[in-house]
Amino acid sequence: MAMTEGPGPREGEIAIDLPASFDAGIYFVGRIHTPFASRADCPRSGSDSDAICTVEVFERYAAALRGIEAASHLHVLYWMHLSPRTVLVQRPRHRPELRGAFALRSPVRPNPIALSLCPLLAVDGRILTVRGLGCVDGTALLDIKPHHRDRAAP
Amino acid sequence: MAMTEGPGPREGEIAIDLPASFDAGIYFVGRIHTPFASRADCPRSGSDSDAICTVEVFERYAAALRGIEAASHLHVLYWMHLSPRTVLVQRPRHRPELRGAFALRSPVRPNPIALSLCPLLAVDGRILTVRGLGCVDGTALLDIKPHHRDRAAP
Repeated sequence: MAMTEGPGPREGEIAIDLPASFDAGIYFVGRIHTPFASRADCPRSGSDSDAICTVEVFERYAAALRGIEAASHLHVLYWMHLSPRTVLVQRPRHRPELRGAFALRSPVRPNPIALSLCPLLAVDGRILTVRGLGCVDGTALLDIKPHHRDRAAP
Repeated sequence: MAMTEGPGPREGEIAIDLPASFDAGIYFVGRIHTPFASRADCPRSGSDSDAICTVEVFERYAAALRGIEAASHLHVLYWMHLSPRTVLVQRPRHRPELRGAFALRSPVRPNPIALSLCPLLAVDGRILTVRGLGCVDGTALLDIKPHHRDRAAP
């Protein structure tokens, strides 16, 4: 595979052909509003961001928020629509070695589902204010889960 | 909505019509092997389980595991194919009040994506041994992410 600059694969990276059809479908249940207009503006990961962001749940799904104000932290799952899905082995920036997509939290992965743990700051109808999302403004929301401290956590 | 027993809605629960088409598609990238043959055998949540489970990544995606042995803990995302997607407000068992799907970690949600944080015990080719998954044997794998302690964590 040729070494390229920019969005193409870098030296040693491995890309695959994906299956001809999907195995399951997802619905976008809302939209995330952030201060980041493009990928170039985004922090490397959500945990590098102190940005105040809002999570807008679409009207159709608003009833699913009942009781959410009791949560101190949320797991927010969203869809990284700008990420290529074919690159399995990547050369992360600022690291010498090649790594697999499942050994990285890079947006580049077969299913570009992102996961961020965010403090919940406020609830106003179907708009949640949270801290620490690092995605592009307008990113599609997939799910919200209240965070309970996991016994498995280190 | 009528009060029913069993798999139907309970009193006060709210179900909706879902959109006619999906917004995005996902690939199943592997399969999870657990001691739980049916939903009735499963613990209430993965964090109630000390079960030793294996995560099998399909051959097509095996290269994405490169470097994963460096992780102590993994976020495992999987697809709860047995869960209804239409019920937005639920009456959790063992709780008096109605709660929205986004205020619960119940499998019943518009996008039945589950998230478990698991200690990684062993890596043997494309088979990972982990502790603490609570899903039915044969459940489809969506993604694996190495867990780094999040600044947002309480």
